[in-house]
Order: sequence, then C-alpha cells, then structure tokens
Amino acid sequence: MDLKDKIRVIDGFPKEGISFKDITTLLQDKTAFKHTVNKIARYLKNKHIDVVVGPEARGFLFGAPIAYAIGAGFVPIRKKGKLPYDTFSVSYDLEYGSDVLEMHKDAIKKGDRVVIIDDLLATGGTTASVVKLIEQAGGEVVTIGFVIELTDLKGREKLEGYDVISLTKYNV
Amino acid sequence: MDLKDKIRVIDGFPKEGISFKDITTLLQDKTAFKHTVNKIARYLKNKHIDVVVGPEARGFLFGAPIAYAIGAGFVPIRKKGKLPYDTFSVSYDLEYGSDVLEMHKDAIKKGDRVVIIDDLLATGGTTASVVKLIEQAGGEVVTIGFVIELTDLKGREKLEGYDVISLTKYNV
Repeated sequence: MDLKDKIRVIDGFPKEGISFKDITTLLQDKTAFKHTVNKIARYLKNKHIDVVVGPEARGFLFGAPIAYAIGAGFVPIRKKGKLPYDTFSVSYDLEYGSDVLEMHKDAIKKGDRVVIIDDLLATGGTTASVVKLIEQAGGEVVTIGFVIELTDLKGREKLEGYDVISLTKYNV
Repeated sequence: MDLKDKIRVIDGFPKEGISFKDITTLLQDKTAFKHTVNKIARYLKNKHIDVVVGPEARGFLFGAPIAYAIGAGFVPIRKKGKLPYDTFSVSYDLEYGSDVLEMHKDAIKKGDRVVIIDDLLATGGTTASVVKLIEQAGGEVVTIGFVIELTDLKGREKLEGYDVISLTKYNV
C-alpha cells in the first residue's frame, strides 16, 4: 500500500506557501490505518519497548494504537498546564515565538526503553524537545517513528545518533 | 482489574473544588491500558462499526486504539481551525463562554455505523455536540463509550436514547 494515496495534500493550509499533509484521510480508512500502525509495530517487535511517547495532539493518533499493538504503555506529552501532576518541562522554538512541552515526572522510570511516535517529522524541533524530556526522566530512546517525513527540512539531522524511521517521504 | 486503582485523583486541578481524574497513570500502565481498550473493543464486537470518533485531545488516547482493535477507521473531532478541509461545525457551551468543534464533512458517509469514544462523561455537553456532527453527516451513533463517568453531573440524561457505556464511575 502506498500511503501517499491515503494522505490528502492541501496547499495553502494553515497559510500560503505551506503544503499541508492531512492524515485524517488515512485514519478514517480502516485498512490504511491498520496498515500504518502494524508497519511500525512490526518494526518495534523484539525491541522490548516499555513505553510509547507521543506529543499532543496528532502524536496521540498513532502513538496510542502503536502502544496498544505492541503491548506497551503510552505517555502523552502535553502543552503547558494540561498535565495535573509534577512535570518536567522544556521550551522549544516555533517559527514565531516559543512553546512549552510537559511530561509527568513519574511517567517514565530510569532505564525504560522508549519509542517516540509522531505523525510528521519536519524540522525536528518538537521531537528533540521530547527526547530531552525522556532522557531527563532516565529513559532510553530506542526508536523515533513518524508516518511522514519532510526531507528538505532536515529534521533527521537534529535527531542524529537516534534510530529514526518514517513510512513515507515528501520533499516539503 | 479495578480501573480506579489505576486512575490518579488530583484534588484542586485545574482549580479549587475540582477533583480531577488523571488517566495518564492508566495509560502508562501497559496492562491497564490494554485491559481498558480490550474491554470496550469486546463490547463493540459484532456491532459492525465502520468508524470510531473521538474528540481532541484525550478522546484520541482511547478512541484511536479502540478503532485499531476493532478494525475500524478513526475520525478526530477538533477545535476550530485545526482541520484543513471542509468541515461541519457546532458550538457548545463551556462553564464560562463557548467553544467550537469541527469534523471533516467527508469523514463519515451516510449510513456509517459510528462509535464515539472519550475519556470522561461529565455534563455530556461535548458529547452531545459530537453526536450532532455525526448525524449531520448522516452517520448512525451506535454506542457512546467512556472510560470514566461522573454520575452526579447527569451527562447520561443529555444522551438519552443512545447506548451509553462507561467502565468506571465516580460521583463527581
């Protein structure tokens, strides 16, 4: 299955010059959705993963079912103020301004084998922040998996030294 | 398994007087997470579900793995402006003010058998709005499933006539 047939590309969203990759068309297609989750789950087989981590909100869409499929727990990374208990936090730069991501301090135990899942690898800024949160908690980032990679944005370089996989690639 | 042992209750979050039900402790426990998804998935067996619908963001955490487990598609309901294509929208009242939920118009086809999944049934306001979106698209709401129900808030009354299930109940 070519996932590109299932991903809708919308030019000019959220603003001019951006070619948005809409994964809702993939999610609502039961065969494509199952295929996507299974493909990453199969890759993670025998890697002894304890926990899948996914950033709000699109990271939940693939991260939670992958966690379920491989029998791991799931840890959500959220924007500032959404998590109710003690958190680690990290700020990261956006195109304009910055934002803060948080993870519960007790979500990951020292030595946990962790996978990060998100829908899209663009510049890699969000993911690099998620890596910091996991390592601060003492977790080991075993693999970082994306459904889509925008290769021209070179996010992979920001994640050098980690095992990065993506199911489908676009230039931008 | 008593899910209450896995849900963390935090008094005073997000503000005084609220007893917040933190489902992150359930999610990060691989056994409890699998148990939760499987329990709802088993209930849905033989109901011929086409699509699971979940509202942003916590509805994604259970809705997406349940969709995967039963072999259905998943449709995210999002806050205003997040979905890139043509949407149906509905506004709903919050404690203070109101908010808008959107669903892609082509996410659900006429006659689709639909399940709504969310983490928590409180007043039922959000869920009633999600029902409207699905029915506007011509879908049939077969079941509405929650991990937690706050019974004193009587959300079930707002969803009368629908098949509503919840895995664990608190008064408030």
